[in-house]
Amino acid sequence: MTRPTPLSGFPEWLPPQRMIEQQVVDHLRHTFELHGFAPLQTRAVEPLDQLLRKGETSKEVYVLRRLQAGDTEASDTETSALGLHFDLTVPFARYVLEHAGRLQFPFRRYQIQQAWRGERPQEGRYREFLQADIDVVDRDALALHHDVEVALAAAEALAGLPIPPVRIRTNNRKVCEGFYRGLGVPDPEAALRAVDKLDKIGPGGVAALLTETAGASEAQAKACLALAEISTADLSFTDQVRALGITDPLLDEGLAELSTVVESAAAAAPGVVVADLSIARGLDYYTGTVYEIALPGQGLSIGAGGRYDNLATAGTERYPGVGISIGVTRTLGLLFGADKLSISRPVPTCVLVALPAEADRPAADRVAAALRRRGIPTEVSPSAARYGKQIRYAERRGIPYVWFPGAAGDEVKDIRSGAQEPADAATWTPPPEDLQPRLSGG
Amino acid sequence: MTRPTPLSGFPEWLPPQRMIEQQVVDHLRHTFELHGFAPLQTRAVEPLDQLLRKGETSKEVYVLRRLQAGDTEASDTETSALGLHFDLTVPFARYVLEHAGRLQFPFRRYQIQQAWRGERPQEGRYREFLQADIDVVDRDALALHHDVEVALAAAEALAGLPIPPVRIRTNNRKVCEGFYRGLGVPDPEAALRAVDKLDKIGPGGVAALLTETAGASEAQAKACLALAEISTADLSFTDQVRALGITDPLLDEGLAELSTVVESAAAAAPGVVVADLSIARGLDYYTGTVYEIALPGQGLSIGAGGRYDNLATAGTERYPGVGISIGVTRTLGLLFGADKLSISRPVPTCVLVALPAEADRPAADRVAAALRRRGIPTEVSPSAARYGKQIRYAERRGIPYVWFPGAAGDEVKDIRSGAQEPADAATWTPPPEDLQPRLSGG
Repeated sequence: MTRPTPLSGFPEWLPPQRMIEQQVVDHLRHTFELHGFAPLQTRAVEPLDQLLRKGETSKEVYVLRRLQAGDTEASDTETSALGLHFDLTVPFARYVLEHAGRLQFPFRRYQIQQAWRGERPQEGRYREFLQADIDVVDRDALALHHDVEVALAAAEALAGLPIPPVRIRTNNRKVCEGFYRGLGVPDPEAALRAVDKLDKIGPGGVAALLTETAGASEAQAKACLALAEISTADLSFTDQVRALGITDPLLDEGLAELSTVVESAAAAAPGVVVADLSIARGLDYYTGTVYEIALPGQGLSIGAGGRYDNLATAGTERYPGVGISIGVTRTLGLLFGADKLSISRPVPTCVLVALPAEADRPAADRVAAALRRRGIPTEVSPSAARYGKQIRYAERRGIPYVWFPGAAGDEVKDIRSGAQEPADAATWTPPPEDLQPRLSGG
Repeated sequence: MTRPTPLSGFPEWLPPQRMIEQQVVDHLRHTFELHGFAPLQTRAVEPLDQLLRKGETSKEVYVLRRLQAGDTEASDTETSALGLHFDLTVPFARYVLEHAGRLQFPFRRYQIQQAWRGERPQEGRYREFLQADIDVVDRDALALHHDVEVALAAAEALAGLPIPPVRIRTNNRKVCEGFYRGLGVPDPEAALRAVDKLDKIGPGGVAALLTETAGASEAQAKACLALAEISTADLSFTDQVRALGITDPLLDEGLAELSTVVESAAAAAPGVVVADLSIARGLDYYTGTVYEIALPGQGLSIGAGGRYDNLATAGTERYPGVGISIGVTRTLGLLFGADKLSISRPVPTCVLVALPAEADRPAADRVAAALRRRGIPTEVSPSAARYGKQIRYAERRGIPYVWFPGAAGDEVKDIRSGAQEPADAATWTPPPEDLQPRLSGG
């Protein structure tokens, strides 16, 4: 075969990058577990009708078929109608409905898993990407304090990483919909989708779209844009909305909810959650609070989420939920691109046991086993080349210590400093900072 | 919508099972890292021609297409010819070729990831499943000691789990191929595929298949079956093969390699690796050592692997490899089915902070934050119901401790024993065995 080439939109990391990704994921998971979120994974596929039920993403779904599905397979609707999930919220809502009888509510879970979208790859947009989601769902009704909780837990998880502090830009669907309704815009849902494109096409583009798709007049489009300009770290957004002169019961409800969320969040963690009335979110399933996670200096959000009161509903059963999703691949793509994250070595190995001769391999294996038993990642030299070559192998791989077995006693060398000392595999321990690879900022 | 139903072949765990899976995966990963294997993930998809290049699995591949791929898309061969990977070896070989210039050889990696096969689901066979692989590849030639290393590392990883000790049944493709050749079987590759079905269709079925597909005579089929019956924990398999009276240079080479592998493994870990000449492995890409991991009392193997000298080859570049794959989903499916694994609680949460009144939530959040800062997984009660109800909520979720904020000082209750004592969130620590959920045998 010829040398393979990358597939656009399907990022693959080199080993040091994957080690960074894994440490980032470990940290997110650790924080989520500290907050009592239980781990969950769902299958990669959903029935196509589930995936197309909500949202604007239908054209981005990857559909599966079996390569050699025979004629008998043609009628196998189960197989012929599966697609890869495009987020972790739709599968989670389906999971909750399917397993509700065996879950305890409110049910809290985190889910760190790949998702797929068949869209055209571009900066920050991938066809395969890793997401880290936390959600809380309850039966019948879900208390508003969970809207605060998931935002703060996500911010806390990100705050533990060597990246700048994030801000969670927050809005409430009811504010927008109530405002558009009070304003008399003919199609409030279309207006929401238009405003969602503000970052991409700017105010002029949105105004045109509001007229075209939502039936708004020029004055109405202007008012919609005025609403989207409001962004405050405190509760003054309410007065600014009121000053636009629109009244509507749904708008009042939305402003009250958003005020509670912003106020409660500020009391617990000042400056993390801000009101930003331009946040609309493209997905149809959100019904209240919506979030985007902003990383300073980056135009793209690195996460998003919101409340979905009607997504997990079957007959009279209803499981409203709220959640937030951190785009792990997107975040790492941005940080790798800017060279902002590094790892102290690209292998787990702390010690390479050198090999005087191939016949010494069993003895070297015993040294390695003794070190591993005490939690020290160790490998044995792949060959009994001369020591200089074995040391260079360790150097190239970033392994800090080389162990030399000796008839008169073993020795260990720190190949960075050159310091060499007698050592016993039953007791020698590296300095704590050398035991595991360590993540740091760029 | 109506309540969703499971998809056959796509297993999904409930939260306690997922916690068990995650602890199992953590343990495998920890062992692999102790042995110096670096983490790696590959994308879920490969170009279809890669997936169909080797092996018998072509009909089992899931092919992807974009749901609304337009006419312009029809010529987009990149998109139209992607399939989900069916194992982690083929993607890894492709990854090595693609990134060879930026890898250090011998390159050691582990990869814990889903794979997909569109085959008919049955006991132990899934359409989506989690695999945990370790592999070593080198440039041009790969030393035989790595064949021992990967087998022992996999066995060690499994030995740390609360399951019976595994045996690694080992053979060498050269033994079979050399024997069939020396015997004069017209199609040795077809013979290998026939013998691979021994567990499924028995000696009679294999004999028939050998005649039909490999062109073997009755006597040749009998000799092939006699070879497959040989299984020894020591080196006596060599004499038993010799006693069958077949000679061939490839057979000699295979016997020498298999002897070295069995002998070296026995010296390091007696009884783990046994010679079993019935092991053939269905996949075409193996060229030498082949393994299956056997769990006592289970007919199905829980893992497999082998050496592939020609899989990662482009032009004059050649990266021979050896690896072994643990079937995590299959292993867990067997153990869950037999009720052999359990977890001490189905949530990470160690402490539930009770809520005297909803107005006390900010204070309860501060208690929770203080406990979390010291690594104690904590959540705050979802509602300020009466204490009895809050305690029952903790009980239902398996949370061992409930924290009661009090004006005169806080108290913490172990709700299993009922013992309650004064406690300070800045200093109180649970017994070590309660801090994290713990995995145990059934």
